[in-house]
Amino acid sequence: MRDFSQDHRWLSINTATVRRSRGVELPLPRIIEACARRGIRAISPWRDQVAAAGLGPISRLVRTHGLELSGYCRGGMFPAVDAAGLAAARDDNRRALDEACELGAACLVLVVGGLPGALAGRAAHKDIALARSQVRDGIGQLLEEARRANMPLAIEPLHPMYAADRACVNTLEQALDLCDELDPSGAAAARAALGVAVDVYHVWWDPKLRQQIERAGRSRLHAFHVCDWLTPTTDLLNDRGMMGDGVIDIARIRSWVEAQGWAGYSEVEIFSTGNWWRRDHEEVLDTCIARHRSAV
Amino acid sequence: MRDFSQDHRWLSINTATVRRSRGVELPLPRIIEACARRGIRAISPWRDQVAAAGLGPISRLVRTHGLELSGYCRGGMFPAVDAAGLAAARDDNRRALDEACELGAACLVLVVGGLPGALAGRAAHKDIALARSQVRDGIGQLLEEARRANMPLAIEPLHPMYAADRACVNTLEQALDLCDELDPSGAAAARAALGVAVDVYHVWWDPKLRQQIERAGRSRLHAFHVCDWLTPTTDLLNDRGMMGDGVIDIARIRSWVEAQGWAGYSEVEIFSTGNWWRRDHEEVLDTCIARHRSAV
Repeated sequence: MRDFSQDHRWLSINTATVRRSRGVELPLPRIIEACARRGIRAISPWRDQVAAAGLGPISRLVRTHGLELSGYCRGGMFPAVDAAGLAAARDDNRRALDEACELGAACLVLVVGGLPGALAGRAAHKDIALARSQVRDGIGQLLEEARRANMPLAIEPLHPMYAADRACVNTLEQALDLCDELDPSGAAAARAALGVAVDVYHVWWDPKLRQQIERAGRSRLHAFHVCDWLTPTTDLLNDRGMMGDGVIDIARIRSWVEAQGWAGYSEVEIFSTGNWWRRDHEEVLDTCIARHRSAV
Repeated sequence: MRDFSQDHRWLSINTATVRRSRGVELPLPRIIEACARRGIRAISPWRDQVAAAGLGPISRLVRTHGLELSGYCRGGMFPAVDAAGLAAARDDNRRALDEACELGAACLVLVVGGLPGALAGRAAHKDIALARSQVRDGIGQLLEEARRANMPLAIEPLHPMYAADRACVNTLEQALDLCDELDPSGAAAARAALGVAVDVYHVWWDPKLRQQIERAGRSRLHAFHVCDWLTPTTDLLNDRGMMGDGVIDIARIRSWVEAQGWAGYSEVEIFSTGNWWRRDHEEVLDTCIARHRSAV
């Protein structure tokens, strides 16, 4: 297991972590510059942040600073109520794929979606099996184009509390079942076309976590995300903790991932309306560096 | 599958559902009387409510009204930081078992506990595997006494969002693995000494739900709880929905349970600080009856 205590060369910042500074939206170029100043070598930006600044300028800025992208957030949201909705999702995912390529991302992260309309509080139906079959079909279609573009896709199983509105793929086992079905040759590849993003926040509770990380192996491990689970957690979406402030044994999970040969970035992704987004982003980034050394 | 649309003979009220009326704590005797007046044939009371009114008086009141108990809430909370804590949990579970017997409950429901101290926001450690092994040992010890008392134990897997502070058994598969380990002969019994409580709120998201219900079979199905998952959910504990107000396909899950031979009560368990606990309990009970007919 790598020693993270001496430096932060394997730290990546998911840019949602500092999307607000003192409660105010922070443009992506300023996030990039603040990361670069600290010797942070990788980021994982969100599509809306890239769109606001422009794909071309962000692409140039990333190259200027020699930054890597540990991933690109995000494709997915496949389920829909009708053919037009499914087609719109397909088109949007193609654009996400193009952007990931343009930015040279290590993978396109997929948050697959849940029941159509649920995110707006008006689920169109209650058939989660249907949503899951649309997810399978959507990933299958996108995978063909991702192969041509040589861009790995990373299914991110989300915590079961997001099953209705954000992602109906909720365990690593379920995600790997999809990988094996849609990309059977990937298990034997050095780097599978279809793999997973392991975010400790979403999977730490899973009694089969170690077993399924071993099943994933190096070939299907495309991303490793960290933050912490707070007790109490006061909001289902935006109350994630800084590493070390919660109950997740992050180092243990990292040891399992690294035992499979994972040698990539540890990406910090924190959504925190009540705490970290209220602070100055410079403080948040400094804290990420410190906690990367002490609690990851 | 039974037809629930014509009556409410298979409705049970978990008394937490009306523990407050217009925001004020409602004593268990008044809950019992309000249920009995409506021809509700079963309840599932909580230990604190029984203790407040007295075990003897409640036992007599239950018999006077000819009420059944679809379960007794609850034993569990096994993990602790030291031997004294483990012994205290063991003693407390023995008392819960005695009370369940005195009240003639169908089963003692087990909410197994999580990381010691986490419920108070100060987890003593992050070793969920240790907590799980203490749960296994605790259930194993209690099971010996439960067998002698002829009181079935029902492990209730809680939603993974409660893994840290309330229960580190989080899927039906995990609960059934414990059943098979600790009570191997139960699978072939008419009614296993150790089984599960299936609460749709906790398990509806699980891609292996149907498979694991089939694995449980009639012998290990000891309780069936209903409420609904709201979108959005604004509180991790106390924002459960009335059946029909959320996204859970309750009837489908009930059909899977009944396909295994389940013919018991459908127990309504709703924690709702912001909505149902603010209303008058008479209205809540009438709504439970109506939704039992239309949405369960």
